[in-house]
Amino acid sequence: MKNLLLLGAGRIGQVHAKNVVARKDARLYGVVEVNAAAAAALADSTGAKRFDTADEALLDTAVDAVLICTSTDTHVEMIVKAARANKPIFCEKPVDLDIKKVDACLAEVNKTGVPLLMGFNRRFDPSFKALRDRLQAGELGKVESIKITSRDPQPPPPAYVKVSGGLFRDMMIHDLDMARYLLAEEPTQVFATGSVLVDPAIGEAGDVDSAMVILKTPSGRLAHIDNSRRAAFGYDQRVEAFGEKGMLQANNPTPTAVVATTTTGQKSDKPFHFFLERYAAAYQAELEHFLAVLDGKAAPLVTGDDGRRALVLADAATESMRTGKLIEVRP
Amino acid sequence: MKNLLLLGAGRIGQVHAKNVVARKDARLYGVVEVNAAAAAALADSTGAKRFDTADEALLDTAVDAVLICTSTDTHVEMIVKAARANKPIFCEKPVDLDIKKVDACLAEVNKTGVPLLMGFNRRFDPSFKALRDRLQAGELGKVESIKITSRDPQPPPPAYVKVSGGLFRDMMIHDLDMARYLLAEEPTQVFATGSVLVDPAIGEAGDVDSAMVILKTPSGRLAHIDNSRRAAFGYDQRVEAFGEKGMLQANNPTPTAVVATTTTGQKSDKPFHFFLERYAAAYQAELEHFLAVLDGKAAPLVTGDDGRRALVLADAATESMRTGKLIEVRP
Amino acid sequence: MKNLLLLGAGRIGQVHAKNVVARKDARLYGVVEVNAAAAAALADSTGAKRFDTADEALLDTAVDAVLICTSTDTHVEMIVKAARANKPIFCEKPVDLDIKKVDACLAEVNKTGVPLLMGFNRRFDPSFKALRDRLQAGELGKVESIKITSRDPQPPPPAYVKVSGGLFRDMMIHDLDMARYLLAEEPTQVFATGSVLVDPAIGEAGDVDSAMVILKTPSGRLAHIDNSRRAAFGYDQRVEAFGEKGMLQANNPTPTAVVATTTTGQKSDKPFHFFLERYAAAYQAELEHFLAVLDGKAAPLVTGDDGRRALVLADAATESMRTGKLIEVRP
Amino acid sequence: MKNLLLLGAGRIGQVHAKNVVARKDARLYGVVEVNAAAAAALADSTGAKRFDTADEALLDTAVDAVLICTSTDTHVEMIVKAARANKPIFCEKPVDLDIKKVDACLAEVNKTGVPLLMGFNRRFDPSFKALRDRLQAGELGKVESIKITSRDPQPPPPAYVKVSGGLFRDMMIHDLDMARYLLAEEPTQVFATGSVLVDPAIGEAGDVDSAMVILKTPSGRLAHIDNSRRAAFGYDQRVEAFGEKGMLQANNPTPTAVVATTTTGQKSDKPFHFFLERYAAAYQAELEHFLAVLDGKAAPLVTGDDGRRALVLADAATESMRTGKLIEVRP
Repeated sequence: MKNLLLLGAGRIGQVHAKNVVARKDARLYGVVEVNAAAAAALADSTGAKRFDTADEALLDTAVDAVLICTSTDTHVEMIVKAARANKPIFCEKPVDLDIKKVDACLAEVNKTGVPLLMGFNRRFDPSFKALRDRLQAGELGKVESIKITSRDPQPPPPAYVKVSGGLFRDMMIHDLDMARYLLAEEPTQVFATGSVLVDPAIGEAGDVDSAMVILKTPSGRLAHIDNSRRAAFGYDQRVEAFGEKGMLQANNPTPTAVVATTTTGQKSDKPFHFFLERYAAAYQAELEHFLAVLDGKAAPLVTGDDGRRALVLADAATESMRTGKLIEVRP
Repeated sequence: MKNLLLLGAGRIGQVHAKNVVARKDARLYGVVEVNAAAAAALADSTGAKRFDTADEALLDTAVDAVLICTSTDTHVEMIVKAARANKPIFCEKPVDLDIKKVDACLAEVNKTGVPLLMGFNRRFDPSFKALRDRLQAGELGKVESIKITSRDPQPPPPAYVKVSGGLFRDMMIHDLDMARYLLAEEPTQVFATGSVLVDPAIGEAGDVDSAMVILKTPSGRLAHIDNSRRAAFGYDQRVEAFGEKGMLQANNPTPTAVVATTTTGQKSDKPFHFFLERYAAAYQAELEHFLAVLDGKAAPLVTGDDGRRALVLADAATESMRTGKLIEVRP
Repeated sequence: MKNLLLLGAGRIGQVHAKNVVARKDARLYGVVEVNAAAAAALADSTGAKRFDTADEALLDTAVDAVLICTSTDTHVEMIVKAARANKPIFCEKPVDLDIKKVDACLAEVNKTGVPLLMGFNRRFDPSFKALRDRLQAGELGKVESIKITSRDPQPPPPAYVKVSGGLFRDMMIHDLDMARYLLAEEPTQVFATGSVLVDPAIGEAGDVDSAMVILKTPSGRLAHIDNSRRAAFGYDQRVEAFGEKGMLQANNPTPTAVVATTTTGQKSDKPFHFFLERYAAAYQAELEHFLAVLDGKAAPLVTGDDGRRALVLADAATESMRTGKLIEVRP
Repeated sequence: MKNLLLLGAGRIGQVHAKNVVARKDARLYGVVEVNAAAAAALADSTGAKRFDTADEALLDTAVDAVLICTSTDTHVEMIVKAARANKPIFCEKPVDLDIKKVDACLAEVNKTGVPLLMGFNRRFDPSFKALRDRLQAGELGKVESIKITSRDPQPPPPAYVKVSGGLFRDMMIHDLDMARYLLAEEPTQVFATGSVLVDPAIGEAGDVDSAMVILKTPSGRLAHIDNSRRAAFGYDQRVEAFGEKGMLQANNPTPTAVVATTTTGQKSDKPFHFFLERYAAAYQAELEHFLAVLDGKAAPLVTGDDGRRALVLADAATESMRTGKLIEVRP
């Protein structure tokens, strides 16, 4: 039975809290959340202990590990604190939006040897995981190209956009990680372009809401990523891998297997609305993996270095869009 | 180059005429059609010779073979005439609605040795043919059950219903033939039931518009057929075969491969509207097969005996529905 | 927080136990299981109290409700005990294989007014539930026919077959309930036939392993059910509803949304292997519903009378197969 | 009845010849083909008149229009000859691989006012045409992005690659035309990259066999094209359009609608093998459109200018790949 300390009880923190509660081998031991009402509600419903600060909580020797779900700008501070307290860390993506801070943070973590699992949850999605496993098993032979589509159901508020680091660091970073994961070779060239097609306010906030990226690896493997901040039909999350023996596609799963055939056509469900529904199983599997890491039964599937490399690609995409140039990346 | 004589230039006759015209190895040599305007139109557009009567046309030694597309009640007469004139015969289903007339007619044909191909066009549909070929190739091992769905886009006029011989002889006969074809063993038990759910006028005409049938063979293989005279979405023609190694399904093909994903779901095309569209390729393949029969390169895939056996099952289904009893059929 | 008493900790009992443990509003308070090792294992892993007998457990006033997952032949006894102890009851299907015992049992339950929820889990499956809800909402207009396919991955052992009550009472009873549920009108005519196609030992045990049934309601609605004790590809559980405005189909959901396109075709996952995987969400929803019943927020969606009526249809099907006759059923 | 003159009776010339023969409103009047055996075979089977040269044939006043299916390097010469002879022209893509020659050629054609239809056959594919029509009808609202996948079943011989103009001009030009067609706005920015992943001999011939391109229009619409010279499963030709109201996808049609469900999954057909099968209906519709152009009932759907603009994009893509730079295109 592992005692987990939750730092940050916002939307995603509550997802993890609920998943912890449903397990027999873990307990939501403590919670730190600046919003007092949210903290109290979570403590009440789960029996978790409330701590005022992360520092205080990390002094509690009963804490076995930490789940960092605070706002992005505090991740580095929390990771470093937890590492120094020798607590294994799960941290939502990203480590930070600034590569220098990321480097400094990971250097601290490396000194301590504390395991760090970064929350690229999509690696744990049953369909994407199956696709990756089948690629690894050689079903397509040599992989030649990857295509990733990732569209959110609706655009974020402009206020969020301003502090988000931009579409590439905030949204596409998931896809850049997935591309790295599936290409099985580090991309070294990045071309990106983007547009404001969905919401002019996003443009006024200095960002784009629609973007396309091409990645290339030293051996010539190609990847394409396509992002939009708004899909009328919900959360669009698909992957296509192509290789010498054919193609593997992970399509959008649907809530039910019902098909209606009427005068207008044959209609199946639209995709799940957003990440909480689509990736429900992924979050559970992610937590299970973290517990296996705590037990020494697995190494983190997504390391701090993975987080860093995805950010390097996101930075390169941002620069490519700004300059109109192909950007070379040192792996 | 075969010279074909078309008897009857109604809807289905025109389908065959058009397919003949498109071939290099056959010519629409002559046409007999009581509707003078229709006869003239077809002769004009194809260069076919008009004959006033079948008797007159069959005297023309240039005629290589006959396509019988007249009304059902004249099939026997036309078949016998053509057989006596020693012309190979393609005849639209059925031979006749009366089993005694069928027997007499086939006896005449057999005396002459003239090839007779019955127009169970669905055997030539690419999807159903592929399913049958794969069954024959052993893909499912031993076949255990067959399920057939067959629904028309809209009900026929009550006047037609009255002379149709009833749903089982008029509509389900196609499915009974398909069941025989796929079971690869003659059914010997028939249970049928039906309802008037679509159009009360059909009930007033003494028929049903919705029906279900179960067939059983001596070795215990089972088949189910489901008919409706009306499907809001068009022509519903599907087959499912089940065996020890799994299942083969022939679904409804669609006009295009376009899928729309919007706020209401993921929508592909509805099925083709009716038999002219759905079975366009089947009619072409049927004609090609008939020409191969004429060339002595193939034996008729659908014989007069096949037509007879389907009618025996339709008669049994009609009796079963009337009596509420399971009917035993001698194969 | 409801305290639930589990009677019977076999395969299905453990499914419910696990689902209870995962909830915040219920507790696995006690367990009665004749297999001491199984009882101890469950008590250890869940903290449930062990009782030697149902009688003893039902005396415990802390017990809020009972989950009956014992063998079929003990259901009546357990239901009656629980009802007399005034404990709301969830009972796995069937009430009993003998309609007289069922009647007597339900009479006892009715006297007490204790809520009884029967475990026809498929009504809670997200796809089947969505299909039913959409029928109820009038998406198809008037329902005209229902088709149900239900095939198990592999046949049960002959020893089980002998005490099972036969395929219609043991396996098809789920489908008969589903047919009733979707037809929205009680079937009054039943025709059934069956064969031994899968395993001769099942025939030697006096049963069939493949069966087809047709049901008809007073207004003429038709239903077809198709069962096999073995599907090479796993658990085949599909429903098709047809009405004046079109068709709704609930197909087999799959573990992932991955499609492989290679030299042999385009291949998606096979269906889930068996009921534990396929109906995992259904069992959770069923428990949630039972808890809502306990809270007085819902009436049982599946009543004892539903269990009784499904058995009446199963009995009629058994008789129809034996006699080869259409059986009339009084609703 | 239009008399068509076929210039070039190679693979694609024979496709058109066969489609002409099947029509009632057109005749294959004449053929010019340097390969004497091929010319004779076609003349024999169709009754077409053989001419030794295009010049001689164009003097025949019975010729109503010309189908240019000769090798690419002769297109300009043939187009100019036909235009000067005042014969309406259908020409297989491209006009030429050299933009200067294209400009000069189109200037000549424009002087004469002779209609010129370029053979971008995919615009006539039922699925792509339906997708385009639905976009035009506003089904997605404003179009934001287009994604096109185009993969051949196997790579061409290196000898062909050397004279092909390179992948962008030879293969992707179809997709560049489709992107223009669907974006409904001229792309002005092109980024391209490519690799040799399939066949080293293609690299030795100075070309790539795998490529990705991003296009952008002035209003910010984005398009992505993905090409491979080899797909193990056949001809992969798909389009996805995304807009404010959702998504339209044109998937690969398949030969049959059969699905096999076995121990390894649910398997449908692979796509058609190559363009002759996949685009059979497109070639027929293209010819029908050309005949409508001849009748003055339609303007050419694909003009010489369309051919020119696709080449401009292909040239830009070629330059982008060579330089690693984003290329600006003047529309």
